[in-house]
Amino acid sequence: MPRRIAQSVSAGDETGTAEFDRWFDDLRERRAMQVTPVPLDDLSGWSTHPDTGVIRHDSGRFFTIGGLEVHVPNGPVPQWSQPIINQPEIGILGLLIKQIDGVLHCLVQGKVEPGNRNGLQLCPTVQATRSNYTQVHGGRPVPYLEHFRDTARHRIVSDVRQSEQGAWFRQKRNRNMVVEVTEDIEVIDGFRWVTFGELHRLLQAEDLINMDARTVLSCVPFAGPEVTAVLPAGGDAFHAALLASCSGDGGLHPMTDILSWVTEIRTRTEVYTREVPLRGLPGWRREAGRIVHESGRFFDVIGVDVRTGTREVGSWMQPLIAPIGTGLVAFLVARIQGMLHALVHARAEPGYLDVVELGPTVQCTPENYTVLPSAARPRFIDTVLAARPERIHFDTVLSEEGGRFHHSRNRYTVVEVDPGPEYDHPDFRWVTLHQMADLLRHSHYLNVQARSLVACLHSLTATGRATRRTDRP
Amino acid sequence: MPRRIAQSVSAGDETGTAEFDRWFDDLRERRAMQVTPVPLDDLSGWSTHPDTGVIRHDSGRFFTIGGLEVHVPNGPVPQWSQPIINQPEIGILGLLIKQIDGVLHCLVQGKVEPGNRNGLQLCPTVQATRSNYTQVHGGRPVPYLEHFRDTARHRIVSDVRQSEQGAWFRQKRNRNMVVEVTEDIEVIDGFRWVTFGELHRLLQAEDLINMDARTVLSCVPFAGPEVTAVLPAGGDAFHAALLASCSGDGGLHPMTDILSWVTEIRTRTEVYTREVPLRGLPGWRREAGRIVHESGRFFDVIGVDVRTGTREVGSWMQPLIAPIGTGLVAFLVARIQGMLHALVHARAEPGYLDVVELGPTVQCTPENYTVLPSAARPRFIDTVLAARPERIHFDTVLSEEGGRFHHSRNRYTVVEVDPGPEYDHPDFRWVTLHQMADLLRHSHYLNVQARSLVACLHSLTATGRATRRTDRP
Repeated sequence: MPRRIAQSVSAGDETGTAEFDRWFDDLRERRAMQVTPVPLDDLSGWSTHPDTGVIRHDSGRFFTIGGLEVHVPNGPVPQWSQPIINQPEIGILGLLIKQIDGVLHCLVQGKVEPGNRNGLQLCPTVQATRSNYTQVHGGRPVPYLEHFRDTARHRIVSDVRQSEQGAWFRQKRNRNMVVEVTEDIEVIDGFRWVTFGELHRLLQAEDLINMDARTVLSCVPFAGPEVTAVLPAGGDAFHAALLASCSGDGGLHPMTDILSWVTEIRTRTEVYTREVPLRGLPGWRREAGRIVHESGRFFDVIGVDVRTGTREVGSWMQPLIAPIGTGLVAFLVARIQGMLHALVHARAEPGYLDVVELGPTVQCTPENYTVLPSAARPRFIDTVLAARPERIHFDTVLSEEGGRFHHSRNRYTVVEVDPGPEYDHPDFRWVTLHQMADLLRHSHYLNVQARSLVACLHSLTATGRATRRTDRP
Repeated sequence: MPRRIAQSVSAGDETGTAEFDRWFDDLRERRAMQVTPVPLDDLSGWSTHPDTGVIRHDSGRFFTIGGLEVHVPNGPVPQWSQPIINQPEIGILGLLIKQIDGVLHCLVQGKVEPGNRNGLQLCPTVQATRSNYTQVHGGRPVPYLEHFRDTARHRIVSDVRQSEQGAWFRQKRNRNMVVEVTEDIEVIDGFRWVTFGELHRLLQAEDLINMDARTVLSCVPFAGPEVTAVLPAGGDAFHAALLASCSGDGGLHPMTDILSWVTEIRTRTEVYTREVPLRGLPGWRREAGRIVHESGRFFDVIGVDVRTGTREVGSWMQPLIAPIGTGLVAFLVARIQGMLHALVHARAEPGYLDVVELGPTVQCTPENYTVLPSAARPRFIDTVLAARPERIHFDTVLSEEGGRFHHSRNRYTVVEVDPGPEYDHPDFRWVTLHQMADLLRHSHYLNVQARSLVACLHSLTATGRATRRTDRP
C-alpha cells in the first residue's frame, strides 16, 4: 500500500491565508493576459481543411477539432453529431510534494490560461502537453518537468492516466502524477509551497483551484486515520462518517460486486462513434466566425487571440470550446454503515476510451434540457436543486481547463440525503471514498467531474462543511 | 477481498482420471466434426466486399476480416500491414463453480471447434459470443447462460473483460466470469463437474484445456494458504516460493511502482493503427482460395466447411486464421525474497485497446524471425530454448481458440532462472503471482498468453513440477 497523505491544520493558517492572498494578487497583476475573440477563419497558425472543415495547427501538433457522429441506440438521445477535440497525445499533470517542518506541502503554481474568466488560477507543479514538453512551439523548458520524467529518482505516490471531458474530447487522457521529493527545491517565481490544508480551504473559493490541480489531488491516496490525528476533536456525525469512508474497509457493496457492475454496464452499453467532416455537420453551422449549434445551446467553437509577456510564447491564437451556461456537478452522499457513501452514476460519453466511466450523481448543464427530450433530464437533479441549505456540505463554482475551454464553469456540490430505495437504480451505486481511492489507482474508472468531487470531499475532512467563499480571487 | 479458491488433492484422483478419460473419449466419438478446407470465394453465408475485400457474414454479425495498417515508430519493425479480425461484440466465458462434498468443483464441457486439430477440447461452462446468446443464427439456447446473465442471483467470484490475441483481433474482449452456485444444477450431456485439482492435472495434457478455460481459470483468485492446507508436506524450495507468491504481500516491486511502470510505458509507446482495405493489402495476396503473406510466414486466412450433428447449427462455413508454425510462450521465473516472481514483458500489439499489455517473458513464433530483422528477435528467447530440463517446471503444447484460429498451437513453458542484473530492462519487470491476481481484477493488464501461463503456474501448486503428458486426448 502507498503511504497515505495527511493534511495539516496548523495554528498558522490565518496568517497563511493573508500571505497567500498577497502572493496571488501580486502574481495576477504581473501575469495579466489579453484574450480577444477572433473569427475562426482569421486564426493565424491554424487552418480549416477546405473539404472536411477540420481545424488544425500548421505544425500538425497540439490538437484538432473535427466532427463526430454518435449513436447510443438505447439512450434518450439515440443519435447526434457534434464537434470534438482530438488530442491523442498524453500530457503530464504533475504535483511535487515534500515534507517541510513535518508537514506535507505541495508545490503549486499560479498560471493564466486563455479560457479562464479570471486570468490566474492555481495549478499543479507541472501542467504540460506533450507538445509543451517536447517544445514544439519553441518555448521555454517546462519548470520542474525533470522530476516527472525521471521517475526512478524520486518516490512515486501516484501515477495514472485519467480521462478528461468525454463530451468534448475524443479519448483524451492525461498522466496524473504525484511525486515526493526530499531534496531542496528552488522555488521559482510563480510557484509556492502550500499545505494540503491550505489547498483544501482554497478549494472553497470560486474559480481558484483549476481542473488539473483537482484531478491530481483526487489521485492522492488520502486517508482518514492520519487526518483524524491532526484534527480537532468533536466533529459531527457527517464528519465522522466522512473520515471512516476515507480510511475504512468494506462498504455497502464489496469491491468484487462494484467491479462486476462496471463490467456488466460496459458490456451491455452500446456507444458507436465515427469521425465525420466538421464541414456540413448536421445541426451545426459556421456563422460570425464561430461554430454554433442551431439551437444556440451546448457550446460554440470560437477563436481567440492571446497576448502575454510571461508565457513560454508571448502571443498566439487558438480555437476554444465555449460552453453555453453553467453546469451542475453533484454527488448525493449518505451515511450507510457509519461510512459516507457517494452515489456514482455509470455514464457513457462519446469520447471515453472504454464506453462508460463512473461520474457524479448529477452532471449536466440544466439549460440544455430545454431543447432535449424530457427522458434525457438527469435522474436526481431535482433532489440536488431542492436541497435544504443544512444538507449542502460543499457548494462552489469551479472552472474547467482554460487551455481548451472558454469560461467553462460548473457548480460543484455535495448534498447529503437519507439512504433509501429511491436510489436503487441499475446505473447508480453507493461507493465509499476508500473504494473510489482504490479505483483511482487505475485508469478510466472515475471521470474528471467525479474526480473533482473526490477532491472536494477530501477538503471537507478538516471541518465536515465548507464555508462558501466567493471573494477569491 | 474475494474468497479464495483452494484446489483439492484427494485420494480418489487416480480413479477420477480413468473415469474422466472414459467420459472424454466417449464424448469425442459422439461429437465428431468434419472440417474441410473451402476457398474463401466459396464460403456460403459469407461474402467478400468487391471494393475493400473485407470478408463479412451476410447477417452482418459474428465477425469480419479486414486490413490493418500499423505504425510503431520506435519498434524493430516500424510499419506493416496485415489482415485482422474485427469482432467488437463482447462474449461471455463463464465458469460455474460449486462446493460438492466440501470440495470446490467447476462445471466444464467438452466442445468441438472447427479450428481444433483434435476435435474435442475442455471448455468453461459457457463460451458464447453475443451472436450466440442472442441467437442470431437461430440455433439452440446456450446451456447455463442464465447463471451469467442474472448476476444478482449468485455469488460472483470474478467478472472482468479481458483482451484476446492483439496480433489477430482488433480490440476483441471477452467477459471472463466465475460464478458460485449453491443450488442443485442439472448436468446435461457433454458437461461434467471436475475439481480444480483435476483441471490442473489435465492442463498438462497437450491441446486439452482450451484457451477460454485457461483465461477464466487465471481470473479465479487463487491463494496459497488454503492450497497449502490440503497439500502433502515436503515440497521443495521452488514449490514453497510458488505458494508464497500466490498468497503473500509485497514483492520485489511495490504495486504502486508496477502501476507507474505500466503508465510510463503506455504513455511513451506510440502505436498507430488504421483500418485499410483487405484487397491490395501490401505484402499479402489472395491465392488458391486463401490469403497468404508473400513470405509464406505469419498466418493464412482460410475458409472451412464444417459439418456436425450436435452443434447449435448442424453445418456452416466460416473463415479462420491459420498461423504458420508452433509458437513459444514462456515465463522466466525466479525465487526473489522467498517468493516466485515471473518476468513480465510490456508488449504492444496492434489490436490492444490500450497500447500495451503485460505478456509472457517470451511470446513469439520462432520461425517468423527468418524473415524479420534481427533486432525483432525476442529478448531472452535463447535462455528459454537452452534451459536445462531440471529448470523447466511446465512444458506443454496448448491450443488457442478453435472458433477463430485453425490449428493454432503454442508451447507453454515455465523456466526457472537465478535472478540477476541480466534481467533488468525497461520493458520487463519481476512480479509475483498475487500481484498478477490483483491486476487480473481489472481489464487490459495481462494479455491472453500471460493469463494462460498464470493458469499453468497455479497448476503447479499441487506438486511444483508438471509431468509432461502427451497421451491426451
